[in-house]
Amino acid sequence: MEKETSRLGLVGAPRLWAVAILAVTLVGAGALRFGGQQAAGPAPAAVVPAANTVGEPAVASAAERAVLAALAPGDRPEGCIQPDRRINLYAVELPKDGTQIRLGYGLTPETASYPGPLIEMIEGECLAITLHNQIPAATLEALRRDPNIPLGVSLHTHGVKYTPTSDGTIHTDSYVPPGGQRTYIWYAKPRNTSTGSQGTAGYWWYHDHLGGGPHGTQGIGAGLFGGLVVRRQGDVRPDRTYVTAFGDLQSINLRRGAATDTCDPVNPVPGPTCIIADKGERVEFLVIGMGNDMHTFHLHGHSWADTRTGTVDGTNKAIVDSVPVIDNKTIGPGDTFGFQFLAGDSVGAGNWMVHCHMQFHSDQGMSTMMHVLNPDGTLAAHSADHAPVSAAGAPAAHSGHQAGTK
Amino acid sequence: MEKETSRLGLVGAPRLWAVAILAVTLVGAGALRFGGQQAAGPAPAAVVPAANTVGEPAVASAAERAVLAALAPGDRPEGCIQPDRRINLYAVELPKDGTQIRLGYGLTPETASYPGPLIEMIEGECLAITLHNQIPAATLEALRRDPNIPLGVSLHTHGVKYTPTSDGTIHTDSYVPPGGQRTYIWYAKPRNTSTGSQGTAGYWWYHDHLGGGPHGTQGIGAGLFGGLVVRRQGDVRPDRTYVTAFGDLQSINLRRGAATDTCDPVNPVPGPTCIIADKGERVEFLVIGMGNDMHTFHLHGHSWADTRTGTVDGTNKAIVDSVPVIDNKTIGPGDTFGFQFLAGDSVGAGNWMVHCHMQFHSDQGMSTMMHVLNPDGTLAAHSADHAPVSAAGAPAAHSGHQAGTK
Amino acid sequence: MEKETSRLGLVGAPRLWAVAILAVTLVGAGALRFGGQQAAGPAPAAVVPAANTVGEPAVASAAERAVLAALAPGDRPEGCIQPDRRINLYAVELPKDGTQIRLGYGLTPETASYPGPLIEMIEGECLAITLHNQIPAATLEALRRDPNIPLGVSLHTHGVKYTPTSDGTIHTDSYVPPGGQRTYIWYAKPRNTSTGSQGTAGYWWYHDHLGGGPHGTQGIGAGLFGGLVVRRQGDVRPDRTYVTAFGDLQSINLRRGAATDTCDPVNPVPGPTCIIADKGERVEFLVIGMGNDMHTFHLHGHSWADTRTGTVDGTNKAIVDSVPVIDNKTIGPGDTFGFQFLAGDSVGAGNWMVHCHMQFHSDQGMSTMMHVLNPDGTLAAHSADHAPVSAAGAPAAHSGHQAGTK
Repeated sequence: MEKETSRLGLVGAPRLWAVAILAVTLVGAGALRFGGQQAAGPAPAAVVPAANTVGEPAVASAAERAVLAALAPGDRPEGCIQPDRRINLYAVELPKDGTQIRLGYGLTPETASYPGPLIEMIEGECLAITLHNQIPAATLEALRRDPNIPLGVSLHTHGVKYTPTSDGTIHTDSYVPPGGQRTYIWYAKPRNTSTGSQGTAGYWWYHDHLGGGPHGTQGIGAGLFGGLVVRRQGDVRPDRTYVTAFGDLQSINLRRGAATDTCDPVNPVPGPTCIIADKGERVEFLVIGMGNDMHTFHLHGHSWADTRTGTVDGTNKAIVDSVPVIDNKTIGPGDTFGFQFLAGDSVGAGNWMVHCHMQFHSDQGMSTMMHVLNPDGTLAAHSADHAPVSAAGAPAAHSGHQAGTK
Repeated sequence: MEKETSRLGLVGAPRLWAVAILAVTLVGAGALRFGGQQAAGPAPAAVVPAANTVGEPAVASAAERAVLAALAPGDRPEGCIQPDRRINLYAVELPKDGTQIRLGYGLTPETASYPGPLIEMIEGECLAITLHNQIPAATLEALRRDPNIPLGVSLHTHGVKYTPTSDGTIHTDSYVPPGGQRTYIWYAKPRNTSTGSQGTAGYWWYHDHLGGGPHGTQGIGAGLFGGLVVRRQGDVRPDRTYVTAFGDLQSINLRRGAATDTCDPVNPVPGPTCIIADKGERVEFLVIGMGNDMHTFHLHGHSWADTRTGTVDGTNKAIVDSVPVIDNKTIGPGDTFGFQFLAGDSVGAGNWMVHCHMQFHSDQGMSTMMHVLNPDGTLAAHSADHAPVSAAGAPAAHSGHQAGTK
Repeated sequence: MEKETSRLGLVGAPRLWAVAILAVTLVGAGALRFGGQQAAGPAPAAVVPAANTVGEPAVASAAERAVLAALAPGDRPEGCIQPDRRINLYAVELPKDGTQIRLGYGLTPETASYPGPLIEMIEGECLAITLHNQIPAATLEALRRDPNIPLGVSLHTHGVKYTPTSDGTIHTDSYVPPGGQRTYIWYAKPRNTSTGSQGTAGYWWYHDHLGGGPHGTQGIGAGLFGGLVVRRQGDVRPDRTYVTAFGDLQSINLRRGAATDTCDPVNPVPGPTCIIADKGERVEFLVIGMGNDMHTFHLHGHSWADTRTGTVDGTNKAIVDSVPVIDNKTIGPGDTFGFQFLAGDSVGAGNWMVHCHMQFHSDQGMSTMMHVLNPDGTLAAHSADHAPVSAAGAPAAHSGHQAGTK
């Protein structure tokens, strides 16, 4: 709040992740509409917006609208006359993690990652997403568990509105075979105060629903998932967003042990496995539960209101007094929540643990750090690695794995 | 909301379930007070009420009140001078599911089912329930795990008020031996604005607390459970209610795989394993967690506010902006929640998955469909069964099982 | 509410626990600031305060403030100029439970217990806690699972603000080796209505984060945990508070089966394993999830609002109508919640089960009672023990174990 400019946005580094919130100009998309992780060369000059509030969705030009109108004819949830903009999403195979097949979604094939790019919408927007399945058929065959399921992957989302043909499921035939493409239409339906309709603003996720079987279990497990945030007009924008998916084998974003924190101690660059912030930055977490296990997300030194945004209107005493404030939250598979907070507020710079509080999960490597940086941009010193280097097999299974590198 | 009349109520079919919300006139009960599932012959003419709001509890006649006053003397929670009405509940043995013993509660012995009948109350009401244990002693003996526990079953409820003698537990001796009966008194205590008392309106469940052991584990597991909804004056009534209990062995209402969806493709009839709705109908889900596992309830294409009713007063911006909207929710054993929503709102007719998002649960058959019907009353076409027919043993264990038939 | 005085406070008994809410005068602490369990001789004359509301934090004298100012120099979260008061906390080894090592925190070495003393703060307060590690090195060696972790224990807390040097973690070197001591500074940051900051009022817990490994798994499992409640000015104080931690091996406060209820039937004395209340008393539960498992906390006959305090401002209809009322709640490790309610309200005196609703947990002994006493102070009669005496091994493993005795 009090800070004037972000130092982190100016940090760049080859061969590592950059920048959780990144402006990507697409058909009809205003600046800063989409946030995504991107394998970086030199980082753009100003990638981290100052905290501000969400305004009206951008309006496409007449020419753009003509193009958009032709997309996925007939696939329109009520309220979406036609898409306001479009993005391409590529499903690709990433280098194996040991013997583990890894897949990712990306705004380009080259930037595919797990989690996939953060997709940001504003209530009222209608978004077309063209999914290109570039995963080799042999890879999908290797993942398949149910011979009755065709080879392919899909895009299923939570929270926003879509018709059955954008469901991403086998029974609706809304998947994409290898080499194919398909356009899905998502509508961020706004709240309607006269009917009490609650809108779609929230923290959601999107994921495959076909890879391996009818629920996409193997596709998700290999990396086909990402965060979706729908904002409401008037919401405060964060300075940066981190997506953390808690999954099987005690993994955070499919990584565990030493691999959950890849921050360079001298020149840290933000990314899914390098969670950093300047003190006072408005940071947003989007937390996803996935897989087969229950988890609890715990953040040291920081807390949030258990509301839609993690904050609460401070002027409404009755609500503020009712809402629980928490620093630990249970998530089951499919659950998502998110929250905004000021990094280091009151507690200062330092290395703040982010971990599952299920003890055997954290002991086996389901633990990372949020680094609130020193004023000089370095990570605060810490006397010992938090990773259980002696835990049998855990970090070893991921040894040599560099987050997001290809 | 916009629809004038319900077509579904006019659909009848032999040998299948009928009608989630059904008017049952009992002692002192007004029309439509109780909803329950019923094995149907021809369905009643008008079983689905239009959406409306909950009013005052019905008042029994003087003659009825004299009868009610004599019930279960001494068993009165504070605020209940005497019961306002009474129902009978029968605990019976149902045909085995393979070798699996199945029990059910019913408003009559013939209509017993799992889940049992939905019981609906209005805050302020006091209800007498006479439980008749018609389960053979030999069956209870077969279920018993603890030789120190007497043979019997009971009625334990959540949410509403009752004295220890209506607790349904072994240590209060409030159970029913085979062949016996016992009257339990439940009071839907209203909120009290002067003391801040929060009332009892909510989505609850009732269940056995004795069969097999001191926590009724085997009784519940065999089918002795059902939904209870307590409404508040001014609440909106749904058009139809579905109770879904997520339990062990990856079951929804103790069924899994193909058995979780028994809708006839041409002539679907609503029931616990045939979830259908006309587009625009106000549907209510009451979700129960039971057994030994965690689950997450996920519904495709629809979402709800994480509040008492799933909706929120749209005119109160501070509350609307605080409340999370979700489409996936974790439930542990004993947890219940419910929500109302408009079927197919924005997303249209189609076959919308309802499943546990714990991947190995859904892969093993913990998945069904909410069918938002085509305008002609048929189910929308779908290209493939969602059930994992190749999953070893899962559907086979229920092969030939028809929901609720006897 | 309606009661004039508490009878329970006058009950005393040697060799048993006394009194959940106990006034302890410490440096700068006003009366009734700290609640804690204590091994009792004759109980103090008036230990249970009448229900009242939380006021301003007490102000230390000038002399006291000079002493407090010298504590833990440099370790001050923003907003804490210096501590307002200090307590000592002793980590000691307790007698083994069979072969199980047991540890406890205490306000004195003699009163150490599991759970440790309830610590109560008011928003705006800054508290210094000096932890004295009196656990033998050999005991910590026996608990250690990771040879890279030094011997020691620590104090990590949830919810309130602290700098990295009060984090209680290995990577911050903020632990205490055997024989050592260390002062931690906690700040109960108040809400700020102008910034929307939500404050720190809530139900939290504190625990070891080093014993056995980098997450303190063995320290916590042996008993190094306790409850922390932060109140907001204007909050209503309870008459008594019970802390119940649901942990591994189906334990409540590390005890299960018969050991979870140690109330003397004639002369019951309140404590962690003797949950009693007079009818109408305002009772508070602080529920902690810990260990490796999910649990659900269920209380018979009583319910609460799912808010910060378990209650809700009854005059705000929109909020009251939105808030779910529950009697069963899922808790994962690290989760905490709490609630206030009037014991026996509407339902009367009796033995009300408190249990995990995960059926195999309750069947294996994860069950106790809240005894709402008869007017003569005795426990209501009950015909059979709720403990599964026939469950193989469960009660036997704790036979002869008396809660809190040394």
